[in-house]
Amino acid sequence: MALILAIDLGGTRIRAAVFERENDSLLLLRRAETLSRARVDSVEAVITRITEIAREVVADEAIDAIGIAAPGPLDPRSGVILRADTLPGWDGVPLVQTIGEAFASVPTYLQNDANLAALAEYSLGAGKGADPFLYLTVSTGIGGGVIHDGKLFDGDKGLAAEPGHIRFIHPNDGKVYRLEELASGSAIGAWAKRRLAQETTRSLLITAGEIDGQTVGWAAQAGDTFALSVIQEAGEWFGLGLVNLIHLFNPQRIAIGGGVSQLGDLFLNPARQVVERYILHPQFHPPDLLQIAALGDDAGLYGAALYARQQANLT
Amino acid sequence: MALILAIDLGGTRIRAAVFERENDSLLLLRRAETLSRARVDSVEAVITRITEIAREVVADEAIDAIGIAAPGPLDPRSGVILRADTLPGWDGVPLVQTIGEAFASVPTYLQNDANLAALAEYSLGAGKGADPFLYLTVSTGIGGGVIHDGKLFDGDKGLAAEPGHIRFIHPNDGKVYRLEELASGSAIGAWAKRRLAQETTRSLLITAGEIDGQTVGWAAQAGDTFALSVIQEAGEWFGLGLVNLIHLFNPQRIAIGGGVSQLGDLFLNPARQVVERYILHPQFHPPDLLQIAALGDDAGLYGAALYARQQANLT
Repeated sequence: MALILAIDLGGTRIRAAVFERENDSLLLLRRAETLSRARVDSVEAVITRITEIAREVVADEAIDAIGIAAPGPLDPRSGVILRADTLPGWDGVPLVQTIGEAFASVPTYLQNDANLAALAEYSLGAGKGADPFLYLTVSTGIGGGVIHDGKLFDGDKGLAAEPGHIRFIHPNDGKVYRLEELASGSAIGAWAKRRLAQETTRSLLITAGEIDGQTVGWAAQAGDTFALSVIQEAGEWFGLGLVNLIHLFNPQRIAIGGGVSQLGDLFLNPARQVVERYILHPQFHPPDLLQIAALGDDAGLYGAALYARQQANLT
Repeated sequence: MALILAIDLGGTRIRAAVFERENDSLLLLRRAETLSRARVDSVEAVITRITEIAREVVADEAIDAIGIAAPGPLDPRSGVILRADTLPGWDGVPLVQTIGEAFASVPTYLQNDANLAALAEYSLGAGKGADPFLYLTVSTGIGGGVIHDGKLFDGDKGLAAEPGHIRFIHPNDGKVYRLEELASGSAIGAWAKRRLAQETTRSLLITAGEIDGQTVGWAAQAGDTFALSVIQEAGEWFGLGLVNLIHLFNPQRIAIGGGVSQLGDLFLNPARQVVERYILHPQFHPPDLLQIAALGDDAGLYGAALYARQQANLT
């Protein structure tokens, strides 16, 4: 009876759970979460909180493996966070070593949170039976992962895949942008602000207090033409990112998660139209290619457990 | 003693060769080539020529497998050329079935020529020992292939990877272009013509007869400032394509072949500068990441033999 401790280190929350291997699946035994304050607290303080919340879910029992999901780029081979854009001060933090010391001799594995969500969606969610399978999460930023031959494709040093870092030149200013600067929730907020400062337009957003991805989404859902056009533009950029991913990986399925995906067709229809327009050959595009991710916020936690089970050979 | 017949169907030449398996490598026994005239002759006439040249290299001996390299997109599972931009009229041609009938009962395999060149460079050339390995060929168009876990990564339906079909928006006109419309040999010629028609400039090319990738290359090598700037721009677009490939695949090595790569630093330095500028983290960029391909024109032929050997399990 293999027991696995999974930890998901996010910018605003730390979550921990204990899973029991159950045939091909995982049985969630206990879970807990805490605010991480990782953006403001010291690295040491956050690591203490990780250890505390982990001990909270581990009862008086032996754990066989630990899996940790964290924002990248990180080095899963050495267990070091290289640099986390969402966690200032976390450059070069040897997280596996530190957590490993707290749980003496338990094999501990670190992996990019979006990669682990991809693994979870492939094993338990929207990617079941699809290979290659791509997962994309569109929220504050854009992340993702690729599954190939049933395993995570993470490249030479474990840094792949970073779909949010696909680069485009924007025709407005000729500058180079990351996909996540064009199509994420933060991007939707930022472009709305930028356009409102430049354009003469009517919009609910003009009188709104805070303009961010969420308020733009609400305005669009209320039928605000300006907000709709901002989201359409973001969706079209996302579609162009999808076109590139489809031509490079020829995936059997792509699952899209994250807060922005909850805008549904407002965001996804413009993306679909761009995909259909620019795809090289219809064979690249089976009818069920694009799907909504199934596991929600828990994907990273489940993925961490699945990954630790795979890496520790707890089959 | 396994014997393999390899065929490389190009737009201007058809090549055939017989290889003998020799431990891990391949021994070239005999080879021949003919003009293909595939752009002007009927499909039937070209297939007859393929069969003739194949029979020419096969002596009075039994062949164990046949590998065919052809331009894509093609379906390697069914052995059908879906559409070949360089071979008009070849939509839906069941090449494996037709060639298979000519060589009764010999297992025959079809694969994208750039994918096979990638396999050959990985096994025998610039990609030895590198995994993931990416191969890019920059000539009339841009093609490429990905090796992962020692095998060709060709996606769900065998359509991956098509790096020439990475899409960008050009800031000049706001239109969507394929990477091969921005950075291939044909693109270099086309952009030189377009810019000469619009700009007031001094250039050797103004008095040149035909302006194509080759004449622009010659002018650049002679120090022509305008030609140099056209090639620099193409190199920068190619660099942006590389940035995207590096972030998605985190390759251990990328080998670059094709006629345009022979321009060397004129084309590759601008690409390298863009890569260094936009790479997310230095870990993505080991010092020997970018290399020149080693096998030249024969990569497709060797790759076809290697692929047939793998697929037919002639290990």
